[in-house]
Amino acid sequence: MSKVPYRTYLTEKEMPTKWYNVKADMKEQHDPYINPGTMKPIKVEDLTPIVCEELAKQELDCTSRYIDIPEEIQDFYKVFRPSPLIRAYNLEKALGTPAKIYYKFEGNNTSGSHKLNSAAAQVYYAKKQGITSLTTETGAGQWGTALAMASSFFGVDLTVYMVKVSFMQKPFRKSVIETFGAKILPSPSDTTEAGRKILEKDPDTGGSLGCAISEAVETAVKTPNCRYVLGSVLDQVLLHQSIIGLETHKAFEKIGEYPDIIIGCAGGGSNLGGLMAPFMGDKLTGKANPYFIAVEPASCPSLTRGKYAYDFCDTGMVTPLAKMYTLGSQFIPSANHAGGLRYHGMSPIISKLYHDGQLNEARAVEQTKVFDAASFFAKYETILPAPESSHAIRVAIDEALKCKETGEAKTILFGLTGTGYFDMNAYASYNAGEMSDYIPTDEDLEKGFAALPKIPGIQE
Amino acid sequence: MSKVPYRTYLTEKEMPTKWYNVKADMKEQHDPYINPGTMKPIKVEDLTPIVCEELAKQELDCTSRYIDIPEEIQDFYKVFRPSPLIRAYNLEKALGTPAKIYYKFEGNNTSGSHKLNSAAAQVYYAKKQGITSLTTETGAGQWGTALAMASSFFGVDLTVYMVKVSFMQKPFRKSVIETFGAKILPSPSDTTEAGRKILEKDPDTGGSLGCAISEAVETAVKTPNCRYVLGSVLDQVLLHQSIIGLETHKAFEKIGEYPDIIIGCAGGGSNLGGLMAPFMGDKLTGKANPYFIAVEPASCPSLTRGKYAYDFCDTGMVTPLAKMYTLGSQFIPSANHAGGLRYHGMSPIISKLYHDGQLNEARAVEQTKVFDAASFFAKYETILPAPESSHAIRVAIDEALKCKETGEAKTILFGLTGTGYFDMNAYASYNAGEMSDYIPTDEDLEKGFAALPKIPGIQE
Repeated sequence: MSKVPYRTYLTEKEMPTKWYNVKADMKEQHDPYINPGTMKPIKVEDLTPIVCEELAKQELDCTSRYIDIPEEIQDFYKVFRPSPLIRAYNLEKALGTPAKIYYKFEGNNTSGSHKLNSAAAQVYYAKKQGITSLTTETGAGQWGTALAMASSFFGVDLTVYMVKVSFMQKPFRKSVIETFGAKILPSPSDTTEAGRKILEKDPDTGGSLGCAISEAVETAVKTPNCRYVLGSVLDQVLLHQSIIGLETHKAFEKIGEYPDIIIGCAGGGSNLGGLMAPFMGDKLTGKANPYFIAVEPASCPSLTRGKYAYDFCDTGMVTPLAKMYTLGSQFIPSANHAGGLRYHGMSPIISKLYHDGQLNEARAVEQTKVFDAASFFAKYETILPAPESSHAIRVAIDEALKCKETGEAKTILFGLTGTGYFDMNAYASYNAGEMSDYIPTDEDLEKGFAALPKIPGIQE
Repeated sequence: MSKVPYRTYLTEKEMPTKWYNVKADMKEQHDPYINPGTMKPIKVEDLTPIVCEELAKQELDCTSRYIDIPEEIQDFYKVFRPSPLIRAYNLEKALGTPAKIYYKFEGNNTSGSHKLNSAAAQVYYAKKQGITSLTTETGAGQWGTALAMASSFFGVDLTVYMVKVSFMQKPFRKSVIETFGAKILPSPSDTTEAGRKILEKDPDTGGSLGCAISEAVETAVKTPNCRYVLGSVLDQVLLHQSIIGLETHKAFEKIGEYPDIIIGCAGGGSNLGGLMAPFMGDKLTGKANPYFIAVEPASCPSLTRGKYAYDFCDTGMVTPLAKMYTLGSQFIPSANHAGGLRYHGMSPIISKLYHDGQLNEARAVEQTKVFDAASFFAKYETILPAPESSHAIRVAIDEALKCKETGEAKTILFGLTGTGYFDMNAYASYNAGEMSDYIPTDEDLEKGFAALPKIPGIQE
């Protein structure tokens, strides 16, 4: 057999033309979203004031196994996709492991991450419905950049609320987002009631994704012909992100391999959910049995230390309630550099799969060890990874080192979601030995759990 | 005929295994480098105290048409290559041009540019010879980053002198280069005689590539088992960069196209020289007749307003003399944001080809117009280009608009050498409408020419 190439690209003709909806193969669905006004399960019409119609339908669709990717979105994908499946020969050699390590690299576009996959879809559907402006939140800035790119491309106005601590850590994100014609504000801001309320309580807060979501939703609801879009957590986002897994699945077919272990970093869950979707489909339908690991920061450990409960998706408590692993919508994580993983909750799909044991394991890792892995990886694979992605690298390396001990030649796949070019303050602090590893105490967590909502008959 | 894909990638098996040496097909060679000590044409042994042996040989090799790429370098290339040849469908549509626009995108690696192609080769040969440390200069920072990556990979120490104005404009380059384990200093620095001399004359100078070269060469010569490496200008660099053109040439074969116009930005000439090499070969051997355009900044117009003369490659006047288009080694360009194009001279190969009319045209463009083109391009092609690369975009757009007027469906190829992620200060200043367009006066240029060296019997 000839050697597997370093990089496997699908041809344009091999690129997926349908997204895969893992819910169609789940034996049990996650508990329904609940409308916080009526405390009843949410319907499409409850969502349409916030998100556009097609996306509301996708959000609640549990039966369509495959959903056609509209031609316009396929064309947009072709501008920056397919992304490569890379065999980490150099990393393997440096580790001296018999394991075969692969990563799906989503960072080779200007947003620097996989976020563009869902941004393209969400902006397209909004534009098609005649929506003229959008609002969103962004953590590390990848989602904001991705959405600015897609909005610029399809011709829709955009306002981005960026978590303040990330806004200050990554000043150049602002310039990139502005270059693509969007407006960007640090959150909490004084432009919304939600923002003003939070600032009143804590004027020096670094903000959180939950808080930025509240601001974006409030603005969307109050502005005519405007909708809110979200870069993670939601079922629709995992649907769009299935393009990552579908390409990976096909690339593995091309090279005659299949992963034993699949690793993804998990903040809201968009990357892990997308990467694992078709492989999870294989598992749910009995075709294969890979081992799935979700990796989260020890500073924001929703899967490993959170509660599986109904909670708001945002700090301002204006969004629907979702059943998910959560630290509580009032939990504000420390100023961890992995901005994209600073979310109190977790995708309901991922939460359900984890709760039911199909997603085998969640692992929390500390920041310094994450950057150790990132620097090591950069040296041998020449890609400077985003801090978020580096959580997956840490665990991939740990698993490869286990193989070294046991002598097993496992095939390890991880998602390299993005590049760290806009995270150089974090690298600079790591290089200077000044990085902190704050882990929340049990008391910190109890405070978060205390604010979980009460739902008569469901969650008392 | 089926539609040409947006992105054409070679398979790993199709990747070039030899570099192409355009000099072997040139009817006349450029005038020889001259040793400033002896005023005689330079020999391999004159170069080996500064650069390693294999590279010195490559520098003076005018007869080997193809040179094998060592397997270790091929393996390194496979980590980040092949780069895609992209059909700019969206840009064409936005311009409403009948022209077919293609670009070879070299920015999808952590150095953010094509520079890694030569860095890989130069570090490999140094390591093979037993060299333990390297020095270099960097303008915009791409070359410094590329070399840090290659040095880290092959295990060689590195010190980078970065042009001070760029060092201050792009603070995060420092963190990237340090992440890959290299040392970086703003130039002029007080660590060399050359630097101290320049600082004495003008303590507030922003520096220049020429000055940074002097510092790097001085350090290399004074440090045991250390050599200097250069990211552009030299024949060896154009040889390594021919990988760009060779991949492009093969990709065009695959899609059944051939460019009518080939456009590259030109600072020292590494990108243009590499991109055009095999196409120039076609021209020199009568196989095809594409039209070549070199694009330079109006602020540093070596081809369009320089003299074709012998000159030092550096400000400190320690390097060999090269016959090239030059503004004079004492010319310090204004603080133009396109750091990589702030060089007083031009590759001797490119200079010769331009002087003899094979490189058809050189065009100088102003910065604001360059950023107009960059922003427009980003909107439709979703890639945020480096300011350097954007010079080529400007002219590609201008040529495509000419086609719109004439109705000609020309095939335009340009080199998109890199991404602008570390140039956000420049974009911020453009977005704020604060960008300047300084063009040197004739008096400025005369001052530079006055310092051209005298060479008895050759240049009086």
